[in-house]
Amino acid sequence: MKIALDAMGGDFAPDAVVEGALLATKTLTDEVEIFLIGDEDQIHSLLQKHGYTGSRVKVVHASQVIGMGEHPTKALTQKPDSSIAVGYGMLATKKVDAFCSAGNTGAMLVGAVFSVKQVEGILRPALASFVPKVSGGMAIMLDVGAIADCKPEILEQFGEIGSICAQYLLDIKNPKVGLMNLGEEEGKGTMVTQPAYKLLKENKGINFIGNIEGRDLFNDKADVIVCDGFTGNVVLKLAESIYDILHEKKITDPFFDRFNYEAVGGSPILGVNGNAVIGHGVSSPTAICNMLHLANKMAETHMADKLRKYFSA
Amino acid sequence: MKIALDAMGGDFAPDAVVEGALLATKTLTDEVEIFLIGDEDQIHSLLQKHGYTGSRVKVVHASQVIGMGEHPTKALTQKPDSSIAVGYGMLATKKVDAFCSAGNTGAMLVGAVFSVKQVEGILRPALASFVPKVSGGMAIMLDVGAIADCKPEILEQFGEIGSICAQYLLDIKNPKVGLMNLGEEEGKGTMVTQPAYKLLKENKGINFIGNIEGRDLFNDKADVIVCDGFTGNVVLKLAESIYDILHEKKITDPFFDRFNYEAVGGSPILGVNGNAVIGHGVSSPTAICNMLHLANKMAETHMADKLRKYFSA
Repeated sequence: MKIALDAMGGDFAPDAVVEGALLATKTLTDEVEIFLIGDEDQIHSLLQKHGYTGSRVKVVHASQVIGMGEHPTKALTQKPDSSIAVGYGMLATKKVDAFCSAGNTGAMLVGAVFSVKQVEGILRPALASFVPKVSGGMAIMLDVGAIADCKPEILEQFGEIGSICAQYLLDIKNPKVGLMNLGEEEGKGTMVTQPAYKLLKENKGINFIGNIEGRDLFNDKADVIVCDGFTGNVVLKLAESIYDILHEKKITDPFFDRFNYEAVGGSPILGVNGNAVIGHGVSSPTAICNMLHLANKMAETHMADKLRKYFSA
Repeated sequence: MKIALDAMGGDFAPDAVVEGALLATKTLTDEVEIFLIGDEDQIHSLLQKHGYTGSRVKVVHASQVIGMGEHPTKALTQKPDSSIAVGYGMLATKKVDAFCSAGNTGAMLVGAVFSVKQVEGILRPALASFVPKVSGGMAIMLDVGAIADCKPEILEQFGEIGSICAQYLLDIKNPKVGLMNLGEEEGKGTMVTQPAYKLLKENKGINFIGNIEGRDLFNDKADVIVCDGFTGNVVLKLAESIYDILHEKKITDPFFDRFNYEAVGGSPILGVNGNAVIGHGVSSPTAICNMLHLANKMAETHMADKLRKYFSA
């Protein structure tokens, strides 16, 4: 398995990224090769600093970097040799099985559509996140920020995309799909969630269990949490802040510790013809290492191919 | 001050309600009279059980009860002698200064518009909630479930309504108004939050500080959190579930303990010509007592009048 990693992406790049890649070499199986993309001098010097002499971590030079605040489309057009553009180039030409970056989220989303293209039949690619359950295990929530305004048909597809992901990435058979709403009863909701409920209910490809509420995020009601990118983004950032507040107060607990973004390391982009993961801007070496594990799992399970096959059927 | 209280509203009514009213007689100032509305036999027997012999708690008979699951409009039409209808009747005829109930939320919202009517100039009355801050104090968040689909103009009004409430109910001078969004930068957001940002920014009557994110809910960025009722409802129920999980795990903390719905006791209905508060369905005596305190504060500060004056100016 070959995974490309943007060495220049994230607030603590390239140091934290290189360190995270080296952590991953110790935990990923031997067949996994990591391609660090970015300024080769800086990367080689960091590898040397850490005394790395192996052959599983390779360096691919990219002369440009897309900054965290840059306009995605403009930056990708003006910087064809940026680490994100080079990474997606390798993914598009199948030189790697997955690409991940803790850099500019917008550029990662736009770059995916530019390079490997949207899966035919998918209305809009989504950004997903993993939500810890009090009982153990995880749920997948989508969208968490790629699409702020969602039509009912898009929410229906999130149910399908999330189901496939939950099956292969979380090993859940017949995953329960819940629609985030402001009440449990059918008929509750907005002009979007009301018709989305009907579409999800009629969809034979998924195991729709109905509406869920904000209080159900961490319980066992749903394995797939369907919501628009606005709601998902607010919820995700709120959950992260809870972890930060508890951490600040030195309250530790096995469940709440899993709210830490580091534990998962990234959000998969779902619905494009390639496996791509976006990491948190503040990614630490542990987060980078876990992002590589997630990218590897996506590659191992052929996630992008599975989605393509489902939607072309 | 005279406050009407629906003795039949809530999962543990009338027992928990009567007990809560008696708790409030010990903490509210002597001038406050409480009117318990509902089945007089049941209420008198409960008052007797608690050995109450005072004159501050009065009983007003209502022969009907609107159940928690009943259709609001239908129930209000078919049950003119329900405790909710009688309560609003007293509020509309100014026999009381405030009315509160932990009963059917929909019936409380519809009943407010039926009886005391919407304030002229207000597009849609809102349901607000109070959010604890890590640094102490509270913010007011609206809407939390009355209006799922909000136009930008409605969100703008929430900023104005919330500002007035924060000033008088929370004693905050020049309250900071934040728009809940999926990014901080101007231009981020949905087809609703983007134009709402512009309206809020141009509104001279409020102190708009821009977008806030899910992670800012509990920090000091905003005293007034503006969001549509869908987002507010999801966020509120999520926060309540965090408290429940911590409680279950026996983790106590002064900040997180304030997530407990009991601490505030209710959500004010804002934008109608009367002071009304809706309590949580599971309200305990403590919650009922705190709901009465909130209703009293609304009456003392002439909240409904202040909103009417602002919007008629």
